[in-house]
Amino acid sequence: MPVSTPPRALAFDVFGTVVDWRRSIAREVAPFLASIGRTDISPERFADGWRERYVPATDSVRSGRRPFVVLDVLHREMLEDLLQHHGVNPAGLGDQLLDELTRAWHRLDPWPDAVAGLTRLKRQFPLVTLSNGNIALMLALARRSGLPWDAILGAEFSRTYKPDPGAYLGTVEALGLEPSQVCLVAAHHGDLVGARACGLQTAFVARPMEYGGRRAPDADLVQDWEHSARDLLDLADQLGC
Amino acid sequence: MPVSTPPRALAFDVFGTVVDWRRSIAREVAPFLASIGRTDISPERFADGWRERYVPATDSVRSGRRPFVVLDVLHREMLEDLLQHHGVNPAGLGDQLLDELTRAWHRLDPWPDAVAGLTRLKRQFPLVTLSNGNIALMLALARRSGLPWDAILGAEFSRTYKPDPGAYLGTVEALGLEPSQVCLVAAHHGDLVGARACGLQTAFVARPMEYGGRRAPDADLVQDWEHSARDLLDLADQLGC
Repeated sequence: MPVSTPPRALAFDVFGTVVDWRRSIAREVAPFLASIGRTDISPERFADGWRERYVPATDSVRSGRRPFVVLDVLHREMLEDLLQHHGVNPAGLGDQLLDELTRAWHRLDPWPDAVAGLTRLKRQFPLVTLSNGNIALMLALARRSGLPWDAILGAEFSRTYKPDPGAYLGTVEALGLEPSQVCLVAAHHGDLVGARACGLQTAFVARPMEYGGRRAPDADLVQDWEHSARDLLDLADQLGC
Repeated sequence: MPVSTPPRALAFDVFGTVVDWRRSIAREVAPFLASIGRTDISPERFADGWRERYVPATDSVRSGRRPFVVLDVLHREMLEDLLQHHGVNPAGLGDQLLDELTRAWHRLDPWPDAVAGLTRLKRQFPLVTLSNGNIALMLALARRSGLPWDAILGAEFSRTYKPDPGAYLGTVEALGLEPSQVCLVAAHHGDLVGARACGLQTAFVARPMEYGGRRAPDADLVQDWEHSARDLLDLADQLGC
């Protein structure tokens, strides 16, 4: 799709697009699973199970069934549900350990191209997060790896979760821009569909290893996005940064 | 006042503390005043008049008399009122010029020590804005001068203006911290009073030229703050950065 006007800001999905949640969560939970004698559960499968609970959990807020709570709270609830699914009683583990495990999501590693790509893109564009992750989580990831965000926006700022239009439009409004002046950068077609429905520009970034090489659950939602890049360095090339 | 525990994040007032609004606004409005033949109005006095309207304007939101609007909107209204005070009809100037003048607040210069001081402080502490300025304004200042914020919080995020407790506590909550774990850094005793009332730590930074050398309007509100620094480099020294 031809782009009429360059964007005036880039808004980023983070989980999967900028950071490799699956490998990082597997690394974080492996010692825990060993410590409770459950080496029968693969850490990667545990990471997948945690992430599979993400859409239903955020949907409970999107649908209005419950008031907005930050993703740290949902991640903790999802963890307890996942443990029960594996026959582990979370109440037996204690609050401190459960919180520490939940904060595994604060220690996700970026994809190898992410910091260099963002640093190049930042020369020309303001870079903001438009993630469902909460501010403390985004800030922890940024400081841990040097992700050079200009501002942390998205779900907690807008008090709703993507793909609710309010999450995209709240972020655009905070930037003082029109939707067409902001480009969402994401590895997920479903997220880009939501952004386009709100009038944002769209840039797809391929992350074939996000699900360990398996097909993405929203692969069928592909459209002719304004940009489609192999990684964030390729996107920087395409945008002339 | 002895500090029991080092803060886990530093939250910054910006206007006056990090940037020199008075000299910057004077520089921005001087060509405009000349263009309308009003060289009888000193640009510095014009800047003072604009800023004098800031407390009543933000108080209209704090008091609940009107719903939250961002500071860009208030700055525009304050400008129109100031022009009328000087016998200039704002309607005769046109929206585009009035908006451009209002965005003078997006082009404020940092104090000479600010970027170097923040850069040192950032090594050890997450740095966030806790300003009444809106996100687009804060982002413009940061990108213009390289202010290395980790996140932009404060009034627009909390939907109320300092010194309303909600502005401080909303920012603390977004960081996932307790009030006592956050230190407000500000050149204004009134702001520090508001932060301390909410349980935050406090750091005063002297900005004797903020009002062109005149006494600060809140000078009488001085207390024994946890830290008191000559500038942000001195604060970095005191905090061991």
